[in-house]
Amino acid sequence: MDDVPEPRVTGPFDVLVQVGAAGLCRTDLHIVEGQWAEKSGVALPYVIGHENAGWVREVGSAVSNVAPGDAVILHPLVTCGLCGPCRRGDDVHCESSRFPGIDSDGGMAELLLTSARSVVKLADGLEPAAVAALADAGLTAYHAVRKAVPLLHPGATCVVIGAGGLGHIGIQCLVAMTAARIVVVDPNPRARELASQLGAHEVVESGKDLTDSAHIVLDFVGEQGAEREGLAITRRAGSYFIIGYGGKIDIPTIDLISTERNIIGNLVGSYTDLDELMTLAAQGQVTLHTKRYPLASVNEAMDDLEAGRLQGRGILVP
Amino acid sequence: MDDVPEPRVTGPFDVLVQVGAAGLCRTDLHIVEGQWAEKSGVALPYVIGHENAGWVREVGSAVSNVAPGDAVILHPLVTCGLCGPCRRGDDVHCESSRFPGIDSDGGMAELLLTSARSVVKLADGLEPAAVAALADAGLTAYHAVRKAVPLLHPGATCVVIGAGGLGHIGIQCLVAMTAARIVVVDPNPRARELASQLGAHEVVESGKDLTDSAHIVLDFVGEQGAEREGLAITRRAGSYFIIGYGGKIDIPTIDLISTERNIIGNLVGSYTDLDELMTLAAQGQVTLHTKRYPLASVNEAMDDLEAGRLQGRGILVP
Amino acid sequence: MDDVPEPRVTGPFDVLVQVGAAGLCRTDLHIVEGQWAEKSGVALPYVIGHENAGWVREVGSAVSNVAPGDAVILHPLVTCGLCGPCRRGDDVHCESSRFPGIDSDGGMAELLLTSARSVVKLADGLEPAAVAALADAGLTAYHAVRKAVPLLHPGATCVVIGAGGLGHIGIQCLVAMTAARIVVVDPNPRARELASQLGAHEVVESGKDLTDSAHIVLDFVGEQGAEREGLAITRRAGSYFIIGYGGKIDIPTIDLISTERNIIGNLVGSYTDLDELMTLAAQGQVTLHTKRYPLASVNEAMDDLEAGRLQGRGILVP
Amino acid sequence: MDDVPEPRVTGPFDVLVQVGAAGLCRTDLHIVEGQWAEKSGVALPYVIGHENAGWVREVGSAVSNVAPGDAVILHPLVTCGLCGPCRRGDDVHCESSRFPGIDSDGGMAELLLTSARSVVKLADGLEPAAVAALADAGLTAYHAVRKAVPLLHPGATCVVIGAGGLGHIGIQCLVAMTAARIVVVDPNPRARELASQLGAHEVVESGKDLTDSAHIVLDFVGEQGAEREGLAITRRAGSYFIIGYGGKIDIPTIDLISTERNIIGNLVGSYTDLDELMTLAAQGQVTLHTKRYPLASVNEAMDDLEAGRLQGRGILVP
Repeated sequence: MDDVPEPRVTGPFDVLVQVGAAGLCRTDLHIVEGQWAEKSGVALPYVIGHENAGWVREVGSAVSNVAPGDAVILHPLVTCGLCGPCRRGDDVHCESSRFPGIDSDGGMAELLLTSARSVVKLADGLEPAAVAALADAGLTAYHAVRKAVPLLHPGATCVVIGAGGLGHIGIQCLVAMTAARIVVVDPNPRARELASQLGAHEVVESGKDLTDSAHIVLDFVGEQGAEREGLAITRRAGSYFIIGYGGKIDIPTIDLISTERNIIGNLVGSYTDLDELMTLAAQGQVTLHTKRYPLASVNEAMDDLEAGRLQGRGILVP
Repeated sequence: MDDVPEPRVTGPFDVLVQVGAAGLCRTDLHIVEGQWAEKSGVALPYVIGHENAGWVREVGSAVSNVAPGDAVILHPLVTCGLCGPCRRGDDVHCESSRFPGIDSDGGMAELLLTSARSVVKLADGLEPAAVAALADAGLTAYHAVRKAVPLLHPGATCVVIGAGGLGHIGIQCLVAMTAARIVVVDPNPRARELASQLGAHEVVESGKDLTDSAHIVLDFVGEQGAEREGLAITRRAGSYFIIGYGGKIDIPTIDLISTERNIIGNLVGSYTDLDELMTLAAQGQVTLHTKRYPLASVNEAMDDLEAGRLQGRGILVP
Repeated sequence: MDDVPEPRVTGPFDVLVQVGAAGLCRTDLHIVEGQWAEKSGVALPYVIGHENAGWVREVGSAVSNVAPGDAVILHPLVTCGLCGPCRRGDDVHCESSRFPGIDSDGGMAELLLTSARSVVKLADGLEPAAVAALADAGLTAYHAVRKAVPLLHPGATCVVIGAGGLGHIGIQCLVAMTAARIVVVDPNPRARELASQLGAHEVVESGKDLTDSAHIVLDFVGEQGAEREGLAITRRAGSYFIIGYGGKIDIPTIDLISTERNIIGNLVGSYTDLDELMTLAAQGQVTLHTKRYPLASVNEAMDDLEAGRLQGRGILVP
Repeated sequence: MDDVPEPRVTGPFDVLVQVGAAGLCRTDLHIVEGQWAEKSGVALPYVIGHENAGWVREVGSAVSNVAPGDAVILHPLVTCGLCGPCRRGDDVHCESSRFPGIDSDGGMAELLLTSARSVVKLADGLEPAAVAALADAGLTAYHAVRKAVPLLHPGATCVVIGAGGLGHIGIQCLVAMTAARIVVVDPNPRARELASQLGAHEVVESGKDLTDSAHIVLDFVGEQGAEREGLAITRRAGSYFIIGYGGKIDIPTIDLISTERNIIGNLVGSYTDLDELMTLAAQGQVTLHTKRYPLASVNEAMDDLEAGRLQGRGILVP
């Protein structure tokens, strides 16, 4: 814990946010260990925290979408708004974005300076601490499901590999937006139980237990064999969505061609995706389990995360 | 002709453009006649001209997409970039846009102040005077065609009603982007001749002469019976795109339902549409006939336009 | 009631169905009154009934999708399978279909001869009498919703005009397949109550009571002013889906263009739509209220329908 | 050369075709060598030839799409028309298709028995010998391009790897249906020259020579390094279409995720695809180079193919 200078509004699209909640992520551990120092290119020390929500304290002269006092969640990227991808609504592929908490000051602080392009106003009744962890992990899960929805007609089967942090959000999004049959693969019995409660139609310990193949596979694991199993259970003309990572795709071209299957890469969602996810949260269709720590207990929280003592998502609150 | 104060760059996204060409439009006549005074809500006098292209003279601190000296065309709207439609890339439906030349100072001047969100950089070889008239009329035609493209598989028939200012751009866009059969309806023999030269597969004087019905009808007239004829020649499960206006749609609901036809409204295109249209222009796939007047001859140009003496589009140049 | 010769399997794709349930429809009244005699071109007398389900009794040599004993629902059309629309899966627009119960013998009988292309096998647990009325009315509602689904992102508003026979199926389909906000307009308090129970988020007596405009309007009424009100409450860039009929569309072209709104015609659904709707029925996501009559009481049932004494859909059972 | 019994029309959807042209394919060599004996499960000898066109000699009682005397091209598959994929228009994924020339008698004969579902009527002016080789190779290229079209807006770059038998058809389809920038990679200078003549905007010897990355890569090679290079030149949010085969995909999951790229499998096209491709052929937008042999010279033709003496596609004619 350190005192840092307060960030200030200087540009017309600046938004100064009083942080209400900052989610903890494994990436934060890696930053502290120094793994990201070179990659993110910032000078240490800086403020980490890239899953943020709070209340607007002050806005620049041109900000029309939020006002002081508004509760907001922050999209993880600050994007330019001018490049081709930004103009098409595909701002995740912005040609000159920055990533607060990774390459500039983030949310594990009292105040955070961001842009009008990064703040989504929360509906009445949504508290920053309840949604902060949706800003990155939840947004990634939502984005993948949103891309899969047009392929999931009634009668289609969607297999979800991994019902953990991202997967259990993905299941809720599928239930809200499709009538597909949802099958969840997870070796962890508690994860399977949660999946059933959230609306999965079938839960199995391993892909080997499946009796049918999938129109869509959403692989939230992407390593340790999941990526092989995921492709193996994708049916003809189906698509394997890779979301988790760590492993590798290794398949003869003839196996993709003879069955006309696709492998779909997935990154975090867009601003519009986050706005839509907040609608699901406001409707009560997406919720998540969190454990709250005061900001001053950040080191305890980090220790708990590292030691695997954290059930659900850790959230730092003021 | 009048001296007005020079506009100046004050905000970070401001772009000051030295006007290279301003297209003349019937709307300009109506503004001068006072028909728009109440509707646009600006105090007269102001500078008209809403089809503009030129060279960037100066930019605000946050402008990253253009630099001084760049040749640019201007999207007709200045949009906020923060509302829902803007964030989805659907900036034409921006919730707080303004329309220079209609509700604020436009391009019939030496300088025009606009936003980084409204300038599309021209490829080498494209001159402002050659493309200015694509900024509004051309953009509207492109937008309608772009929406129709996914419905125009090889073997589909697209009927274009009206091969005038917008229609002849639409035909060029269809040739560039589809393998559809293009049939043009126009009572004017010179328009039909132009349509044939541009690549129409069949030209007829009236919709009554058609031997086949259309998967898509693009109606650039929208009045004086075209709107009835256009629907009449749309086949089962087809879509009638209404672009021109003045008339009215008048059809029993059962006639739409029993044939499952659609009526599709069309407005001007988005920033991305304009960017794509400039690609077609740079490739030489879309060209237009213009007559140039010095800016000082604006009144002569307006007279020619009003008297019907103008062939092609009138352009004011410095 | 009359004795007619038993239909027999003669062709390789013939399917002979023992009728398990035949839905009653206002169209049946109109046929009996003679209104359709000329239009359908069949010689009276013939067997009416175009909402049919039952059990397969016998199949032709080339039938591979059903077998004797299977419970099935019948698509209302018998289509050729060879024309362009059939080959694209758009069999409702088949270029040479017939319509049993309208232009040839239908289902108000013990046996009905149809084609392998018209039978959808029911999942275990689905009884013909429970689903027969979905074959036409339900299929029309499903089809319109299915087309609207890609336009109904979380946060979008869908207004349903009319929560009667078709509308109450439409509401259930929306709940199953989207996270849209569903607003129902119906002057009948019992219909509004049913709509709320089925999951509508807001119910109002008249479109005038709406506080917000709609991304999508599904108009199941289409007459007596609904068609004007429906368009009036469609927002910019939104679509008005016309499903019910009797009235007329009457709107200046400029009103469609300046707001870029669409009017979407809707007919009955395809075979694939019926298959998907049966999935929703099997999942318990779509149910309907019916009143059953023995086939011998057809005249009593027709009288009840004509006199307005029928709550829900009338079904004739063996 | 052998005498075999004449096939005869027995079923209502049978179509007996007098073969007008049968394309030669490397697969035919492999069948003769015995490589396919086990896989196709037919008893040798049988008639090979799976790229066929000709004239209808006789039709079954229910055939409504062709009549005796019609010139036709044959889709390579005979599909059931009743399964889910067939009903959605996705007949390539038919659950019980057969493949004449591979698993039953094909077209290297005077007569070939097929189904009404497999014959596409040729427009006036199209000769069987001019189009036969489009039935399989051309159809595969068309299908991949057709899937890519919606992703290829003006300004997008499409890289085609391999301008050989399939690739040179793909280039023609791209020119006909898109305004994309087409870049062709081929080590063979004659192939590059042909690509330029057909409308490619840039031709390079190797992917290493590219100055820009691709929105879409169409890989018609799929082996010997093309599959690695193809992925390497696919830009963020782009798609790599794999069409050729022999190699393998081998890429860490993080590389797909961090760039959100897709790998799209591609099989032969559907009946509707073939119908559309014949439209392009009739318009003169797709042509191919062939060398004709009399049917009696089949062994000479096979020798030429094996020895690499065949420029263009070999066609057997009566």
